[in-house]
Amino acid sequence: MNKQTDLIADPPKLGEMGLENYAPYLMNRIMGRYNAALRDEMVALGLTTPKMRALAVLTVMDGVMIRELAVYAVVEQSTLSRAVEALVQGGLVRREPDAEDNRAMRVFLTDAGREANERLWPLMVVANGSMFKGISNEEQRAFTATLQKMLRNIRKHNF
Amino acid sequence: MNKQTDLIADPPKLGEMGLENYAPYLMNRIMGRYNAALRDEMVALGLTTPKMRALAVLTVMDGVMIRELAVYAVVEQSTLSRAVEALVQGGLVRREPDAEDNRAMRVFLTDAGREANERLWPLMVVANGSMFKGISNEEQRAFTATLQKMLRNIRKHNF
Repeated sequence: MNKQTDLIADPPKLGEMGLENYAPYLMNRIMGRYNAALRDEMVALGLTTPKMRALAVLTVMDGVMIRELAVYAVVEQSTLSRAVEALVQGGLVRREPDAEDNRAMRVFLTDAGREANERLWPLMVVANGSMFKGISNEEQRAFTATLQKMLRNIRKHNF
Repeated sequence: MNKQTDLIADPPKLGEMGLENYAPYLMNRIMGRYNAALRDEMVALGLTTPKMRALAVLTVMDGVMIRELAVYAVVEQSTLSRAVEALVQGGLVRREPDAEDNRAMRVFLTDAGREANERLWPLMVVANGSMFKGISNEEQRAFTATLQKMLRNIRKHNF
């Protein structure tokens, strides 16, 4: 019987294990600081977390379907729809019906949306760099590879 | 010049790097699924994310100061104060002034609070186990060790 089976059969309590050994706790603390590092500039740009994440995803996959954007941005569909509506009003994105299925909408960055991203990206680079300070490139690569496996384990969508 | 310095001096764009190689994106996606796995039971218990996190932290450090609880639970002080107020009303925690500084409040789990945790903890164990499925104990330990270094890098408090 391996350790993982033991863990499920007779899980140690969080109090026995300690917060510092519980990965979800550590990830929450770390992401809390990462998000805090972006907050001031985000607010100055008139953005919220869902809007900021949607814009960042669009720099990688411009023209993605709204329903996919919700998954990539880790924002509930209804919240994401409102965020996209506000971004359209603010001139940061535009929507277009899909060429093949005109009930499905695709979202594209405008020049203003691209500029907003260019103001946020350097802060993301700094926040990300602070997290990994003093951690070797090899360790960073191993860490990211584990995260990629974890995402494949838990994602509900095939992307 | 090491790679990390290069990265800050001339950061690659997210579009060049790809979402799948950007650790904060991966951590967001993963924590989004972890939180979703707990949501139904959390709602059934009449809890919110800040309340649930506060209760979980208290199983490890019962009687912690409110201001420390906010940091451990990764919830803003004002939100945490409201969550604690609601938990007191619901009979899940009690507050007591600190013995030495009676302006400072300490928070303690009640039996009902302990029971709520005992309903949630097995779900956390399962959600955490799903994330690490097929990932060796050695890789999990290395991953958690990297997270601990990252937390030391970015935390603002000495805990």
